[in-house]
Order: sequence, then structure tokens, then C-alpha cells
Amino acid sequence: MDAVQEPRNTEAFRQAVGNTLERRLFYIPSFKIYRGVAGLYDYGPPGCAVKSNVLAFWRQHFVLEENMLEVDCPCVTPEVVLKASGHVDKFTDLMVKDEKTGACYRADHLLKDYCKDKLEKEPNLSAEKAAELSHVLAVLDDLSAEELGAKIKGYGITAPDTKNTLSDPYPFNLMFQTSIGPSGVSPGYMRPETAQGIFVNFKDLYYYNGNKLPFAAAQIGQAFRNEISPRQGLLRVREFTLAEIEHFVDPDDKSHPKFSEVEKSEFLMFPREDQVSGRAARSIPIGQAVSQGIVNNETLGYFIGRVYLFLTQLGIDKNRLRFRQHLANEMAHYAADCWDAEIECSYGWIECVGIADRSAYDLRAHTDKSGVALVAHEKYPEPREVEKLVISPVKKELGLAFKGAQKMVVEALEIAPCEICFNLTCKQAMGEKEAMELKATLEAKGEAEFNVCTLNKVVTIKSSMVSISKEKKKEHQRVFTPSVIEPSFGIGRIIYCLYEHSFYTRASKDGDEQLNVFGFPPLVAPIKCTVFPLVQNQQYEEVARKIAKSLTAVGISYKIDITGTSIGKRYARTDELGVPFAITVDKATAVTIRERDSKQQIRVNVDEVASVVKEVTDGVSTWNDVLWRFPTHSS
Amino acid sequence: MDAVQEPRNTEAFRQAVGNTLERRLFYIPSFKIYRGVAGLYDYGPPGCAVKSNVLAFWRQHFVLEENMLEVDCPCVTPEVVLKASGHVDKFTDLMVKDEKTGACYRADHLLKDYCKDKLEKEPNLSAEKAAELSHVLAVLDDLSAEELGAKIKGYGITAPDTKNTLSDPYPFNLMFQTSIGPSGVSPGYMRPETAQGIFVNFKDLYYYNGNKLPFAAAQIGQAFRNEISPRQGLLRVREFTLAEIEHFVDPDDKSHPKFSEVEKSEFLMFPREDQVSGRAARSIPIGQAVSQGIVNNETLGYFIGRVYLFLTQLGIDKNRLRFRQHLANEMAHYAADCWDAEIECSYGWIECVGIADRSAYDLRAHTDKSGVALVAHEKYPEPREVEKLVISPVKKELGLAFKGAQKMVVEALEIAPCEICFNLTCKQAMGEKEAMELKATLEAKGEAEFNVCTLNKVVTIKSSMVSISKEKKKEHQRVFTPSVIEPSFGIGRIIYCLYEHSFYTRASKDGDEQLNVFGFPPLVAPIKCTVFPLVQNQQYEEVARKIAKSLTAVGISYKIDITGTSIGKRYARTDELGVPFAITVDKATAVTIRERDSKQQIRVNVDEVASVVKEVTDGVSTWNDVLWRFPTHSS
Repeated sequence: MDAVQEPRNTEAFRQAVGNTLERRLFYIPSFKIYRGVAGLYDYGPPGCAVKSNVLAFWRQHFVLEENMLEVDCPCVTPEVVLKASGHVDKFTDLMVKDEKTGACYRADHLLKDYCKDKLEKEPNLSAEKAAELSHVLAVLDDLSAEELGAKIKGYGITAPDTKNTLSDPYPFNLMFQTSIGPSGVSPGYMRPETAQGIFVNFKDLYYYNGNKLPFAAAQIGQAFRNEISPRQGLLRVREFTLAEIEHFVDPDDKSHPKFSEVEKSEFLMFPREDQVSGRAARSIPIGQAVSQGIVNNETLGYFIGRVYLFLTQLGIDKNRLRFRQHLANEMAHYAADCWDAEIECSYGWIECVGIADRSAYDLRAHTDKSGVALVAHEKYPEPREVEKLVISPVKKELGLAFKGAQKMVVEALEIAPCEICFNLTCKQAMGEKEAMELKATLEAKGEAEFNVCTLNKVVTIKSSMVSISKEKKKEHQRVFTPSVIEPSFGIGRIIYCLYEHSFYTRASKDGDEQLNVFGFPPLVAPIKCTVFPLVQNQQYEEVARKIAKSLTAVGISYKIDITGTSIGKRYARTDELGVPFAITVDKATAVTIRERDSKQQIRVNVDEVASVVKEVTDGVSTWNDVLWRFPTHSS
Repeated sequence: MDAVQEPRNTEAFRQAVGNTLERRLFYIPSFKIYRGVAGLYDYGPPGCAVKSNVLAFWRQHFVLEENMLEVDCPCVTPEVVLKASGHVDKFTDLMVKDEKTGACYRADHLLKDYCKDKLEKEPNLSAEKAAELSHVLAVLDDLSAEELGAKIKGYGITAPDTKNTLSDPYPFNLMFQTSIGPSGVSPGYMRPETAQGIFVNFKDLYYYNGNKLPFAAAQIGQAFRNEISPRQGLLRVREFTLAEIEHFVDPDDKSHPKFSEVEKSEFLMFPREDQVSGRAARSIPIGQAVSQGIVNNETLGYFIGRVYLFLTQLGIDKNRLRFRQHLANEMAHYAADCWDAEIECSYGWIECVGIADRSAYDLRAHTDKSGVALVAHEKYPEPREVEKLVISPVKKELGLAFKGAQKMVVEALEIAPCEICFNLTCKQAMGEKEAMELKATLEAKGEAEFNVCTLNKVVTIKSSMVSISKEKKKEHQRVFTPSVIEPSFGIGRIIYCLYEHSFYTRASKDGDEQLNVFGFPPLVAPIKCTVFPLVQNQQYEEVARKIAKSLTAVGISYKIDITGTSIGKRYARTDELGVPFAITVDKATAVTIRERDSKQQIRVNVDEVASVVKEVTDGVSTWNDVLWRFPTHSS
């Protein structure tokens, strides 16, 4: 077993990647000259180019391919929106404070560190104690504030920096708060996700789509989480780019017309049952996962398949990518099903994309709060006869019995469909079931107990006060709240994992150095090619500039390196940036193109070089294709 | 004269554009279902696509063409950065409050409204009074808080909504404030511009560029201004996208190697002198503007020329675009020169791009605050002999005279170049001039008064306490703070002006309706083409889907319209979105392509249609080019 060796290697690998990334400015700790701010990072030039390429491919792969409606909403969000979504009340982490200095810590982090530390470093730990600590680690995410506090007190955990005692855990809201306008009376927040901007626009987007379902809206933008104490470098940050899709669909029909295009895709899946019973993730064709009911529905399955294609085409290693289903306790009560695309990196398996069927929850929440019906309509080809429950209060009798409270009792008795969503099952209205029970009780006993929530009391209704019957009515359309399937992409996390999966080292020519390489596919490479005059001379530099101009003309990004450094050093520099192709000018009429990973070279005429590089960069041809068409060159 | 007619027409035109934009979801008031928030707007699907196209072209035209270093920094910014930049102290508007309700107003807006109202609506205004009010309008932007307050009091201006009295004007900081981390002790702001993220990274970027000047860095991102009372619809908003370039250059050499590529460009310029003397903007070749000293330097001129090309290629009318030089009172004291690209729209001439030579101000400010030298080095080919002033304090004498205060006096006497920027002229060090004056006084009088700011008093220095002399030294390099030329683009404003410049109406075929058209160039059009089966039938729909697939494959965005609506109505709909090309399927093998503005149609084979649309969309061919190659079709 290399259980001891393993973490050290992982740590060394992470260091090597991180050093290269920071040295070559893939990222920069933000505001570095002012000692930075934890959890904030800049994308430097190559990182910014990688991000831009990832987002462009995302637009191509999702928005354009599916004709999605892309929107772009502000980050500043008024409180009412995030009150409706639940973020104001529930978007919290549990925090403890050093009672003397006021320093803040995430309660679960402290408990986690304590347990791990004991398990790793205490040799004389009893089996019983070890089991207890392991159990705490397993249930960590489910502990309430009280339970966490009890454990922290029980284990005598103190503030790591001072050893002072800690406060009880209490929820800290992770949204950055601000104030909109000058008056100071309109609280606002920096959005914690981009999704809400889409939900509040549902009505307009549905209209824009010709009042037809299904359709998807998408948004790329910044999101913000004021983490208590950011860890894990680029993976847990306070500001990040999200790309989110909200696919609106009829809850009664979650099939997808293009499902057949992905159904044969096969990749690592980790269903709930397998996790619970301790099995490993296994390869399942997505078609089978849907037909066997492992994945709730076709649309959800379709997006899982598309996400798989997206990530692997970017360069994520398919053997270190799995789709893990949420356990029952992870999933929101309203969600129909939820899968995370997890990518394995030196920090473990990291959630990079969440793909959830959130049912009608979000649209209902905003319908309730705003009073605007976020619903869809399905016109019937011809009117349908339906049986409807009709409740007619006898106002005279009710007035005698309840006087001024009559109005509230009448309203409580109404079973007209909810005025907002037109749904009989909406929580705003008395359910059909309750009404039928009331009817039965009234018929059996002549009276019934009835709760009037607006009066906050239970009253007695007599059978003379109300008539309840079923009547036949004609309905011309069905009105319903659509379900939403939400694939949500953490762009920064995907990019970080891509860095780790693309990184490798190889010996230099003379063997006395290990050289770093980022093996990015051309699609994401920050720069598509470099142009080197072999030696410093005016003629070669002119040829290099001519090639540069032709590259710009066809939209290929490049970098010229006219330093006198040895060609080997220049190749090493460009490999470290993940540049897939290097053009070396060693003649006035023909040049060589070198492919980064194979180090193979071909000889190409100056006039053709831009179009060849474009061809292999755009994926029209592979390197192997062009290798046959041009003479190879050995340096 | 149509002076009365004119504003009404302008108003009607603005309404027509605005209605079309909002109805077709180019934009949506944000959080509309919650009655919105003033100054926040969403880009709906076509608006989002236009924005995305404008930004892609910006990247192509500036970043790729000039090999700029693009970075991507967070919006959340710690206070120290914006303290250094001056925003914490000076990024304010003057505000007055309704003394009873607390409602807030921009002081200058109220005064402006008052003056305009009097001038427009009071028929019996004396010539003297009219002149006074006009003068107030002219100097409005220069009034201090006291002056504004005096005018508001003097004219008896009250709160518009309540007629209550108003507070004195006081500065309100326009940044959205927040708190970073959970402790509440680290204030932060949402950045008011993207530029600071570049400045603080200067050192790393300079290194990345091989320690060579000039180079440019660029950033596209959100910026935030908590406007007191947003007006002017999409032009003055609380969150917006900026695209900024910081071109770093040697202050002693602001030539630009590619200036010859733009020098013949000729467009409307409005130099300071012409504004002051009441002349109109006039057409000047940019080469001439630079050579005549109207524009301060070549690099500034180069960017003005490039901005002109950028805006006109997007579709901005060159006759409604001018470059206006800042007046002396508009320009920051440190700026060398500043020009705004102003675009005329229904709101008047609107600043859409600012192009400023900000000298060394920003890098110096961050050098001072952070203690990190943001400087460039120029190695001399061979060492240069320079004469340097050397001040040697005689510590023994100073110690006897000043005891414990000796250290502060010695430090005050030092004339070593500023430790931070190595500049002798930096305000941190005693200037060479002051030192020579001190030497002269000491030689003449044997002693001199000398201010020690760290002691906060003036001391008497005797000639025995210090020797001041000039010595010859060898210098190997020049160390200096680069100047920065900053073109800064308000993307939302450019897009809004583009909407107005692209909008026109034309009569419907039967003449009983005016139809709206956005005449966007293909480059910015939100969707490049629509696909219509002429009549609803399965065969045509299959052809339409086949074409759709081939369009996706070549990266052309499209919309299929298979509704049974008349073809005329469908054309009208697509014209209103500014879609340049419409493909109508009226046969199984060949289809027609219609160009939006000319309404001309050509007949093209199904297999060729995607490549033809791509050709005219990418600008490889014009519509007139393809018009010759294919048979025309009349409907």
C-alpha cells in the first residue's frame, strides 16, 4: 500500500501545477501588491484566453446547438428576489467566533480538522473512538447548529490561532450585501447564482418562444459567495463565473426529441443506491440509465450526456469524470432528481456541474412572491369536459353565525383554483381532497370542524352553511407551472481541473531538466501557435511578421518570439503555455510547424501555413491528417 | 426653423425604438415582476446576442490585432485599492435630501430642471434673467457644493415630489459598498471601473511581456455605479459592461509603429479651441491632427483612429460620431490629453468611449500606496556618466544638535532617489532644486532653516552638519514610471446608440402599416438568418431542419419559423429583429435567400445555402457579390 506516499505525491503534483500556473500568469492572486484578498483571483493573459475559449465552446455546444435563449442580467439584485428564492433565509454556513478576538471560522471545518487530525496523528486512539470520529466525518454535512456546537464543546475544540474558547455556531449568510440607491432603505445583494435572473423573466421568455414548451434559457455571468474562510485555492472562491441553463418543460412530458443522439454514450455513473451500498461508480450507457429509472427522465439524461461530451471535448479525462447522483439527504425536498458531474483532481472528486430537475419550485416561489403567474398554457384541440368541485357558501347562514368574520370563513371555504397559478393543487387553495372530506363529515354529522387560517382558529361549520357538489365544466386549456431542468456549470472549477488533467512533465533533450507541458486541445489552448525566427535576422523576422498577419486575418491567436534564446528553450516556454503549434522560420519560403505533444514537425510553404494551422486548430483536420500531406522535418 | 417640431420628433423616434426593443426583448427592465429597480436592465435574447457579437468583435479588433494581454479580475475590490485610485474620496455626486421624507435627489439635476423649465415655459422672463439661467446651465458641472446649495436656496427650489425644503448638497459616493469576509472589518466595493485590476498587475504583466514597453493590457467586465437617480434609460445605469485598454508606453517616446495604418482616416473632430470659440466639429485626418499638435501624441492618435474604425464597422453612422477633446476644466490635472468618442442619439451627443493619456498617475498612485515599484527599466547599451547630487550628513554634529531627533533630520536631508520609484522628481524625496538652494544658503549664511516634516517643525542646520556636492556616477539603466493611454468603452451605450442608428421604418406591401427594421450589419445582428418553410408541410420542414443543421455546423445562428403565418408577416418579424438574411424553403432542392434591407432574393441550392450565408455574414463577400453569382428570384 502506498497510503502514506500517495498524499505526498498529490501534494507535489498540485504544487508543480500551481507553480507553473502562477509563474506563467494563468492566474494571479487578486490585488497581490496589497497582499491580496483570500478567495479572489485574477485570470492573467493565458488563463483569460482559456476561459474565453471555454465560454465560447459552451455557447456553441449548448446555446447555439439547442437554440437557447441567452439573457444577461445584473449582479446587483434587490432583496425581494432572493427572499423569494430562499437565499436570504437559507444561504448560510455555520460559523463560530473566537470569543476574545472575534476571528471567524467555519464550524464544520474546525470539527473536520479535529477529527482528521486525531485519526491521522494519534497512534493510541481506541477502536471505539476512531469509529466515533469517522462517523462524525461521515455525517458532518447533516449536523444542525446545536449538534455541531455540542461536538465542538464536547471535544474541547478552541480557536486554532489563539486557543481561545469559541462561540456557539450560528448561521452566517454568504451573500455580499449592499444597498441600492442613496437612501439606504433598499437592501440588495450580489447574486449568489445567475438562475434567478432567468426565472423572473420566465413570462417574457415564454412569450418570446411563441408560448411554446419546452425551451431553455441560459446565462453566463459572475456570481458571488462571501465565504467564511476560503480554502482549496482556485476551487472555493468568493467570486466566480457561472454558466447556467434553465430548461423549461411540461411536467407531464419530460421526453427529449434529441435523446437518441446521446443515448449510446457510456460513462462513469454513481447512482444513489451504489453509493449507499458502498459500490464503486460504474460505466452505464445513458439510454439504459434512463430506461432503468436510474435517471429520472429523458431530458435530465439528455443534459447529462451533453455535459459529458462538453467536458471531454474540453480535455477532461473521461476516466476521472463521474456523474454522481445526490443522496436523499443532499437533495432539496422539491427536486425530482439531481446529478453532479464530479471531476477528480488533487483535491479529490470536485463538483463542477450540477444537473438538477428542480420541478416547479422556482417558478412557484416567484409566482407566490410577485403575484405574477409564471405558468404555461396548453390549448386543447377541442374543449374537454371535466368534473369540478363547486363549493357554494350560503352567505346568509354564515353571516348569522360568524358576523364580521364571515368574509374570512367564506374565503377559506373557496376552492376556486388558485388565483395565481390556476392550479387546484397549489398550497394557496383548499385541496380537492380536503373539500371532499369536509363534504363527507357534513353529510354524516351535520357539522364539521374547519380551520380558518386567516382567523387563526377552528370554527364549526353546519351543513346548512355550505353546499359542496361536483359539476361538469368545459375546459379549453390546461394551465400549469413548468418543471425546470437546470444544468449549472462552475466555469472556474472546470478550468482548474482541466489544468490538472492537461499537465505533464518530460525530460529535456539533454535529460538534465524536467520540462512542464500543458497538453491542452487546440479548442481551449490560450494561444494557438507561436512564431519563431530560427535565428535573429531581418529576413526571418519579416517572414515571421508576414505569417503573423495572415494568422490574424484568419482569426488565429499567436505569439511571436524574436528573442535570441535557443530554439529548444523557446519550445519549452511555449509548451508550458500549452500552445499546440509552433511555427519556426528557417527559410524565406517554407517554414516548419511543430506539434506540441508528439514534437513532430512538418514543412509547409509560407503562404499555406496560416490555413494549415487554422485547419488543425478548428478541428477540421487532425494533426495526423496533415502529417500525411506535408513532408516531415527533423530538426 | 423646426426648433419646436424637432424635440417632439426626437421623442417619438425614441419611443418607437424603445417600444420595439422592449417588445422584442432586446432589453427587459430587470426584476420586472417585482416592479423593477431603477437603472438596472437585462439583455434579453437578441440584446444578449448583439452584446456578445460586439464584444467578440472588440476582442478581434483590439486584443487579437494588437496582441494585448487580456486579464479578468473580480468585481469585489478591497478598500485600499480604491483609496489609492482616489475613488473612495472623490467618486461622488452632490446630493440633496428632502428634509422631511429623506428622499434623495441629484443637486445638479434639480437646478438644471429648474433653469430649463423657466427658460422654456416662462414667457415673461427678462432678458437678464434668461441670460443668468443660461449661464447657470453652462457652468453647472463646475459648481461646488456651496455654490450649488446657494443657487438652490436662492431660487427657492424644493423637493419635486413634496415641495418640502431640501438639505444642503453633500457628496454621495457612487460605489456600491459591501464587506469582505464574515468579520465586518474589511470594507470592499463593487469596482466602478475595470482599469484598477490592470494597474495593480502592472509588474507581472510587464514581466510577462518580457520586460518590454510598449504593451497593452485589456479587460472586459462589469462595473457598478450606485447612481442617485438614474435617468436616460439605457444610457445611465447602475451596472454596465466596460471594455478597457491600458496601453503602457515610455513617456519619452509615444510614437506608434502602426500609426501609418490609420493616419489617413478622416472623421469629425472637435478640438478644445473650436469648442471654446464656438466653432463646429470638423473633419480632420488623424495624421494631421497629430502632426499639428491637436492630438497630443501618435499613440493617442492611433487609438482614436482604431476606435473610429471599430464604431463605424459596428454600424455607427459616421456622420453622427465625433471625437471631442476635453476642455481644460474637464480633464484631470495629471492627464496629458483626453478625447471622447461621442455618438449622437435622441438624448444628444453621448460619451461612449473615452481615450485619455493619463500620464504616470495611476501607476504612481499604486506605487505610493502599496510600496511596490510599478516601474519600467531601460538598459543603456553602455553605462552613462551622470552628475548626481550627493548629500552627506555629518552624523556627529547632527547628533549633538538634535539628540533623539537626529534620525528624522538625517532622513529629511537624504536626496537618494525615491526608494519606490527611483525618481528624483518624486514627491517622496527632497528635490534637487531644494537641495541646491539649501547648499547656497549654507554657504552664504553658515546656517539655514530646514523643514523636517516627520518632526513637524523647522530646525536650523549649520554648514558643519552636512556636505552637499555634485559627483559623477555611472548609470546602467533608466528607471521610470510608464505613461498609460486608456481607451475605455461603455459597451451598453455603444449598443444603445447602435440601436438608434440602425432603426428605420418602411411601409408594408399593402401600404397600410409602417414596419420596423433594425438594419444591423451581419457582424452584430443577433441572429444571422431565419429559415422559413413557405407553407406548412412535412417535406419543407425536413429541408428546413437539414439547412438548420448545416448552419449550426458552420457556426451561423438561426431561427426556424414553422408557424403558418403569411410569409410577409414572417419577414416583418425577422426584420424587426435585425436578421440580415431569410431562407425560404419553397422547393425540396433549392431555396431562396432574401437580404433584409434591399429585400432582393436569390435562388441557391440547399447544399450551398449555409456556406453562402456564412460568406456574407463573415464579410468574405458582400450581398452584391453573391447577387451576381446566383439567379435572382422575385416573389
